[in-house]
Amino acid sequence: MNVLVVYAHPKPDSLTGALKDVAVQQLRADGHQVRITDLYAMGWKAHADPDDFGVVEETNFMLASGAAYHNGTLSTDIRAEQENLLWADTVLLHFPLWWFSMPAIMKGWVDRVFTCGFAYGAGGNALPRYGAGVLAGRRAMLVVSIGGREPSYSDRGVNGPVDDLLFPIHHGILYYPGMDVLPPFLVYDTIRLGSERFDEVADDLRQRMSNLAKLEPIRYRPQGGGDYDRSLRLEPGREAKGASGFGLHAAS
Amino acid sequence: MNVLVVYAHPKPDSLTGALKDVAVQQLRADGHQVRITDLYAMGWKAHADPDDFGVVEETNFMLASGAAYHNGTLSTDIRAEQENLLWADTVLLHFPLWWFSMPAIMKGWVDRVFTCGFAYGAGGNALPRYGAGVLAGRRAMLVVSIGGREPSYSDRGVNGPVDDLLFPIHHGILYYPGMDVLPPFLVYDTIRLGSERFDEVADDLRQRMSNLAKLEPIRYRPQGGGDYDRSLRLEPGREAKGASGFGLHAAS
Repeated sequence: MNVLVVYAHPKPDSLTGALKDVAVQQLRADGHQVRITDLYAMGWKAHADPDDFGVVEETNFMLASGAAYHNGTLSTDIRAEQENLLWADTVLLHFPLWWFSMPAIMKGWVDRVFTCGFAYGAGGNALPRYGAGVLAGRRAMLVVSIGGREPSYSDRGVNGPVDDLLFPIHHGILYYPGMDVLPPFLVYDTIRLGSERFDEVADDLRQRMSNLAKLEPIRYRPQGGGDYDRSLRLEPGREAKGASGFGLHAAS
Repeated sequence: MNVLVVYAHPKPDSLTGALKDVAVQQLRADGHQVRITDLYAMGWKAHADPDDFGVVEETNFMLASGAAYHNGTLSTDIRAEQENLLWADTVLLHFPLWWFSMPAIMKGWVDRVFTCGFAYGAGGNALPRYGAGVLAGRRAMLVVSIGGREPSYSDRGVNGPVDDLLFPIHHGILYYPGMDVLPPFLVYDTIRLGSERFDEVADDLRQRMSNLAKLEPIRYRPQGGGDYDRSLRLEPGREAKGASGFGLHAAS
């Protein structure tokens, strides 16, 4: 497999950094090709702005990103990451959960690399999405370090269920341009994680890496699969009994 | 009132920029004090890293941010924003919905300004949160421009319900350090928004600004209010009939 590891932590000696190393080592030991996008190490520019586009006539910001994509004038760092995504069979995003989402630098990787024309269309130039798109046939998985304890992220936990917190990333970012999304690898209670539990977590992660190809993706519903009406609402009666909210969009 | 407007769009002539101007003009006309944090214009640094902390001995990244907060060695831009938050009665976040969340530069405002010790505690130094905390007594509201159409963000819409997409911001970022969260001001279908609808939207926004003080916040449950057990799960039977997921954490 060709595996792209996108990694965001300001400190290489962090837990997130250590787990990234564990994953990469195991993937290479298993014979896979690995590319690492180390956002902090490469000084990734986090904020999307018109400097990303080169010279384009379009003034609307979103459409300008599409024009730059089609004209080949996107900045070099963005084009390199688009090429990495097209090269990969599997994309891993390694990050700590900061304020219930990814760190800004990784959000900036998404904002800048998933341009109009590449990852999404706009207005009259809509592209296929949700289960179809430029990254169809690829698989993606999150590896997330979470400071708090697991019960507070459970079905009734005060932070909200972790599957719902991650839905905007899983479904909204990864499934949107066509990737199949594997169940995330989550490490909780990292504030109190000692060396003994680290060894257990690292073993679990090695095993997860060696089993990547066998993992079943989350069964999100393709937008073009007949489940949605013309206004893109789920047709009545398609959902599992009791499902609601984000839960409607995964088949049971 | 003292109103802090935090605004993120790379182009001043964008819809988001125009609506920010409408809001600020009305607030000032109504006699309020307004400060504007224009993240792009000020060249806000989006990525959190150890340069934010000055010289601290702590090596753990999160704890280092707490040490820098307590030592007064946080970088000047971060301290200025913490001071703005303490000055404000009301905080407005103006941004376009990019990949179902805020732009990276605004996430970087949260990641860097909401430091350990200020907005949250860690481990043995937990701070009050969810309805209590450093920003208690303040109110916050999102003003969000959304490219897609409203039905696709409704209860059964393919993107997921907008209230759930915004929950990690509303509850996880704003309510967490104690702010009351007002219902968001949302503009849909911005790709197709012409000048006539702009005028209507601007009128609605002016009215919203003039009514800010009367708006009822979302009734999230305070963590310290007796609704949660020791593992921070909602006690059985507290929720409205049929509520689940994020919906558990707002009283009906």
